[in-house]
Amino acid sequence: MQKYPDHLANYLETVNKELKIMIQRLKTPETLKNAMDYSLQAGGKRIRPMLIFSTLAAFKKDVAIGLPVACAVEMVHTYSLIHDDLPAMDNDDFRRGKPTNHKMYGEATAILAGDGLLTYSFQIISEIKQLSAEKRLAIINELAKASGPEGMVAGQIADMEGENQNLQLTELEYIHTHKTGKLLTFCVKVGAILADADKATIDLLEQFGYHIGLAFQIRDDILDVEGTIEQIGKDVGSDREKQKSTYPKILTLNGAKNKLKEHIAKAEGILESLPIDTGQLSFITELIAKRDR
Amino acid sequence: MQKYPDHLANYLETVNKELKIMIQRLKTPETLKNAMDYSLQAGGKRIRPMLIFSTLAAFKKDVAIGLPVACAVEMVHTYSLIHDDLPAMDNDDFRRGKPTNHKMYGEATAILAGDGLLTYSFQIISEIKQLSAEKRLAIINELAKASGPEGMVAGQIADMEGENQNLQLTELEYIHTHKTGKLLTFCVKVGAILADADKATIDLLEQFGYHIGLAFQIRDDILDVEGTIEQIGKDVGSDREKQKSTYPKILTLNGAKNKLKEHIAKAEGILESLPIDTGQLSFITELIAKRDR
Repeated sequence: MQKYPDHLANYLETVNKELKIMIQRLKTPETLKNAMDYSLQAGGKRIRPMLIFSTLAAFKKDVAIGLPVACAVEMVHTYSLIHDDLPAMDNDDFRRGKPTNHKMYGEATAILAGDGLLTYSFQIISEIKQLSAEKRLAIINELAKASGPEGMVAGQIADMEGENQNLQLTELEYIHTHKTGKLLTFCVKVGAILADADKATIDLLEQFGYHIGLAFQIRDDILDVEGTIEQIGKDVGSDREKQKSTYPKILTLNGAKNKLKEHIAKAEGILESLPIDTGQLSFITELIAKRDR
Repeated sequence: MQKYPDHLANYLETVNKELKIMIQRLKTPETLKNAMDYSLQAGGKRIRPMLIFSTLAAFKKDVAIGLPVACAVEMVHTYSLIHDDLPAMDNDDFRRGKPTNHKMYGEATAILAGDGLLTYSFQIISEIKQLSAEKRLAIINELAKASGPEGMVAGQIADMEGENQNLQLTELEYIHTHKTGKLLTFCVKVGAILADADKATIDLLEQFGYHIGLAFQIRDDILDVEGTIEQIGKDVGSDREKQKSTYPKILTLNGAKNKLKEHIAKAEGILESLPIDTGQLSFITELIAKRDR
């Protein structure tokens, strides 16, 4: 993974610690706690928290106010990975180079760890005392829409139904804007909400989220063709094996690379048009474009 | 099933219709919509909505204000049944006399339908325009606590870990207060919150919820020994088959029946002590005590 500069690496450390505390304080059977903690600490890039913090930084706000939401969104992301890896879904044994949750704890516990993380994320947001009730509610509403049956879950089901089919580009984009894009967009949007941004700025940041969401997925597809198992921590070529439609398959590898550049250019263009300090957001954008895992 | 009196049967009809509308309006792939709708409409008793409405009625409030929360809690309950029935969990093929969700739609879709229902429930509560932000937030917080890793999910994992073990009564009570009790208690509590009840009354109603929650489960265990498949719609004796600890097993069948009476008497005692019109709550309590499915 590309190294984060020190101040971002510090945020990452803070998120990791806070997630640990949030799980440890739960009064619940140890097995569940361990299973929830295991996948939360399994070494993700924390792109979503970074997007929240970087958006807050763009508005010159104290990034600390984004910490509980950053943890909540990381729980939602992690729950989706746990359920996605299950034998009935993608049936993956490894994730980020480590055994998947169900390989460690069994399927039943993995299902419940995912359920627990999803539910807990809403509890955490509802308890952020520093924020007004209106703001907490707006964040909960956005998170539910981004991750629920019109968001991430819609993307998952469309992804599944698209296996063994030759999808059109618009169908593939539906899958990825829903499966990945909406939660990434949520992060940027929530940063803007926390910073009391005006509606026009929030709308632009949503478009930014759309482009980095697709860029993220195109890079993923390219990595699946070009990467090595050391780099991405899961089986290379697993998309091909599952007969999944991918950007390289629809557009050729070069076409996919051009599409990636296009989305990154649009994302950068939006950032440049905003009268805020988007340096960190620009860094994350570049990270998404060039990441090697 | 015991028949509800007409006015309660009308609530039930309203809940069924509203749930259908809530699912139909979703912009999401048809498969997911159908799977969510299937289990929501699979003929539950709607005890949880009834508890919300009956609590509101006790305070002489318009029960209509409880409808969206009633639908949300039914979604949470239904998600828990879908995941609980999965092969990796209880591996049940039938529920209420109909094929379980994964038998109809496959495991992957069933997992996602559950995830979708859970997430959507929080969205629905966050969008109840008639309620203040504070109230919506309080309800979301209570729902997350009742159903999350310190509530229902904790009960599920403890239940699973208790298989093939001889549990003590306190361990069995932990399982059931968490797996079933907390969500039933949520319903009574949320009715009281919607009715602006004072803290002392809410506390008493929480105790009432505790007792009917345990009564509900003891009746379930008794039915598992005495019921017929026509009555309960799932395999009789399935607890024994799975080597689950039950009230009859720990206390004998007669002991379990006495315990049931005890909790019902305590629940009734609390209702009688309250200066509100608890007639409908008392009816539901009796229904829980005597239900034959």
